[in-house]
Amino acid sequence: MTNTCKKSYFELTKKWQRVAVLSDAIAMLSWDRQAIMPSGSGSARAEQIAILSVLKHEEITDPLTLELIDKADKAELDDIEQKNLFEIRRIYRHAAALSPKLVEEHSRACAACEGQWQLARKENNFQVVAGSLGEVVNLTQQIAAIKAETFKSNSYDSLLDEYEPGGSSTQIDAIFALLEPALQKLLPEVIEYQADIDFPTYSTPVPIQAQKSLGQIIMKALGFDFLKGRLDTSVHPFSGGTPDDVRITTRYNENDWTGSLMGVIHETGHALYEQGLPSRWRGQPVGSARGMVVHESQSLLMEMQVCRSLEFFKFLAPIIAKEFMVRGDQWKADELSKNSKRVIPNFIRVDADEITYPLHIILRYKLEKALMRDDLSVPDLPDAWNEAFESSFGTRPSDDLQGCLQDIHWYDGAFGYFPTYTLGALAAAQLFSAARKDHPELLAQISKGHFSTLLSWLRKNVHSIGSALSTEEILIKATGSSLSTTAFLAHLNSRYLGKA
Amino acid sequence: MTNTCKKSYFELTKKWQRVAVLSDAIAMLSWDRQAIMPSGSGSARAEQIAILSVLKHEEITDPLTLELIDKADKAELDDIEQKNLFEIRRIYRHAAALSPKLVEEHSRACAACEGQWQLARKENNFQVVAGSLGEVVNLTQQIAAIKAETFKSNSYDSLLDEYEPGGSSTQIDAIFALLEPALQKLLPEVIEYQADIDFPTYSTPVPIQAQKSLGQIIMKALGFDFLKGRLDTSVHPFSGGTPDDVRITTRYNENDWTGSLMGVIHETGHALYEQGLPSRWRGQPVGSARGMVVHESQSLLMEMQVCRSLEFFKFLAPIIAKEFMVRGDQWKADELSKNSKRVIPNFIRVDADEITYPLHIILRYKLEKALMRDDLSVPDLPDAWNEAFESSFGTRPSDDLQGCLQDIHWYDGAFGYFPTYTLGALAAAQLFSAARKDHPELLAQISKGHFSTLLSWLRKNVHSIGSALSTEEILIKATGSSLSTTAFLAHLNSRYLGKA
Repeated sequence: MTNTCKKSYFELTKKWQRVAVLSDAIAMLSWDRQAIMPSGSGSARAEQIAILSVLKHEEITDPLTLELIDKADKAELDDIEQKNLFEIRRIYRHAAALSPKLVEEHSRACAACEGQWQLARKENNFQVVAGSLGEVVNLTQQIAAIKAETFKSNSYDSLLDEYEPGGSSTQIDAIFALLEPALQKLLPEVIEYQADIDFPTYSTPVPIQAQKSLGQIIMKALGFDFLKGRLDTSVHPFSGGTPDDVRITTRYNENDWTGSLMGVIHETGHALYEQGLPSRWRGQPVGSARGMVVHESQSLLMEMQVCRSLEFFKFLAPIIAKEFMVRGDQWKADELSKNSKRVIPNFIRVDADEITYPLHIILRYKLEKALMRDDLSVPDLPDAWNEAFESSFGTRPSDDLQGCLQDIHWYDGAFGYFPTYTLGALAAAQLFSAARKDHPELLAQISKGHFSTLLSWLRKNVHSIGSALSTEEILIKATGSSLSTTAFLAHLNSRYLGKA
Repeated sequence: MTNTCKKSYFELTKKWQRVAVLSDAIAMLSWDRQAIMPSGSGSARAEQIAILSVLKHEEITDPLTLELIDKADKAELDDIEQKNLFEIRRIYRHAAALSPKLVEEHSRACAACEGQWQLARKENNFQVVAGSLGEVVNLTQQIAAIKAETFKSNSYDSLLDEYEPGGSSTQIDAIFALLEPALQKLLPEVIEYQADIDFPTYSTPVPIQAQKSLGQIIMKALGFDFLKGRLDTSVHPFSGGTPDDVRITTRYNENDWTGSLMGVIHETGHALYEQGLPSRWRGQPVGSARGMVVHESQSLLMEMQVCRSLEFFKFLAPIIAKEFMVRGDQWKADELSKNSKRVIPNFIRVDADEITYPLHIILRYKLEKALMRDDLSVPDLPDAWNEAFESSFGTRPSDDLQGCLQDIHWYDGAFGYFPTYTLGALAAAQLFSAARKDHPELLAQISKGHFSTLLSWLRKNVHSIGSALSTEEILIKATGSSLSTTAFLAHLNSRYLGKA
């Protein structure tokens, strides 16, 4: 009996290799679409990705899957196998919970809504997309209700679970209840503190080839393996591909060299996580990235903790001087560092600094919960947004392009995704603080361009774990405490107000 | 009843969309591997492609497929639908004929043999690969026997059918029996004719960027649609991707600009065929390329018929002068044309000129038939090769690198593929001759860089037909006669001996 059950477990892992390969194919075709595909091939590519997604869904929801899961449950499994089985069952339940009809309706509604959103942005008129968004909200509510029933959770958490397995709105509420007032107190202090600072300016255009070369040098220094990955160009920077072939992108603007560099560093953080996942569990859920919070913690750890430190700029300054062939005070480490700290409240999330970014997220988190609970109706969204923004930032968006039309997420059906950005930022601060405690020499090493101690620490405490532990377990094991605002707020106070 | 059957036909076409998307994914991942994949991702990519191939094979051989085929057979289908069903059944029978065990054994034997072949080439020792090749030959014979039974054909033809549907060794024997002595008579005449010709030399290196730019200009002129395709670089030039996103490659050498250009032109011929396939039958066998003979006819028509004509060089010469920034007599149209005609017998097929190339093919065709029939044993292959070469070319290879170790095909399991190269060359000459008959102004247009009449003729007579007609039917409809040596030999006599 046990033997048969163990055999079922292995059959299940073989099945999951097929699921993984379909995911890989979708990932590579998506990367290709965004990075290098000729413009006229879009509709054929969309059709390919749609059909591969159906094949993947069928492979997961195949009745044999549940049969194998139930048999494997009775087998003698080691710890990792048990965790793998747990994740497989979670993925199966997410996929099997919904009827193919509902999945198709939802995916069609999202595609239509995304199109209307583009139009609404062009016409700067929310009403153009209100109907479509209402349809998406309605179908998402249905999905959330069914999944809440399946997972015995509340409906928002059942959406969150797709991006952040085990994530809980109760925990997020508690964290955001501390974070929001702290940031609202900090923000005017920082603005006042910075009022007298003379920030450097960078008016000389930097050739794109020099920016590319700098990006590659920094990627290599941070530990990116170019034998198993590439750097390319796309409209929006992203990290794609597969763990054995990580493809990151950035965008270049001759008048904004920091944009391409910080894009590269952010995506390199994601990439190092993927490249460090345990290859012995490749293709299995237990060997995959934990979720969006840990993923974002890795990109933000590199971008915000490591590569905006004064020590990093000490390493960077001479490389910039050489690669950009520039000289002058503004290119010295102190000035580069100062430039990286500028805080200017902004209506647009993606242009936000480190302090106001979480306020953008908290606003969206509250609104999307209200939308899901029907406490807010779609037609009322613009007003609700603008009021919330005014109460948080003290200014009101002049139109919906500056307000509720700015992000694609909701229009594309992604509800439950936004909070992972800020949870990731908190986790990044907490992990980096723990790494510095374990290795007091870490920042000194960074100033010399030595990143191997840091990378080894991340490999051991985060990357190599894959999904063998939960996000909470990873954080507790690595930092001694569960996710909190402490390290993040200490980081902000230290960086932006010079408080130890 | 008829309605149910018609419904089955449509279900079958929907199933084939899935097969097509799996083929597309395999094609894109293969292109990526050869053109841009980081070197360390090879084994993961091989695994992805292997699993996608299994998924495709399962989708085709699914018991439902045969059920749908048999029901659709009773439906009222129009002509195109009938032809599509015929092709679907052919593909199904090829896939279903073999047990999964035999397919796996064969694919593993080929992979192992390819590895041994690399080693044998390194050590210049056929014995290193003799055992592996024996295994491949043995399994290929088994496959051929099973397929011959399935298709009620002879075993060689059943292998040929995978590359050239409906191809027949009886026809090939008849054609080669005329072609071989004609070429053996022609070759010494041409060598003697060329003995006194003063061929130009090109000793100045041409920068790769200039070669790329020239390639793109010529691709555009010939009609390649860059909105639905790309030009990249790879070790061996090839044409890949999908009809909506054709990816061609070439290789560059500063000291051999003709190599990259002729590579680009050859692959552009393949690409124009793919881009011209009927989009309304996309994903269906009837909408796909007919087979290797027609495909090769399209690449060779461009490379050998169109772009080695004096008229083409008249168009090319001023572009080269500008792009390469060169001047001198050797860059004039007459000299460029002369340079393209040089005939030098060579031990290596891929370096062969237009006259000796078919002799290389005929040699391989005879030997692979003998191997399949057990008239030749693998250990005797090197001697048999060298004797055949000597009797055809008058010289004997000094080692097996110059002989039976030069091509990957057999070691990779491709038996029945070689003759399609030469049948393609004959078809190219025949089609171009017919196009010129239909449009006497064609060459004059080409000298001005106007290729639209030619492309329209190819679109109408070849590309848009897809697989709705057989190779023979396509040729007869377009040229008035079935495949023969007439146009090809006339072309050689005209180009190489100046005979009308």
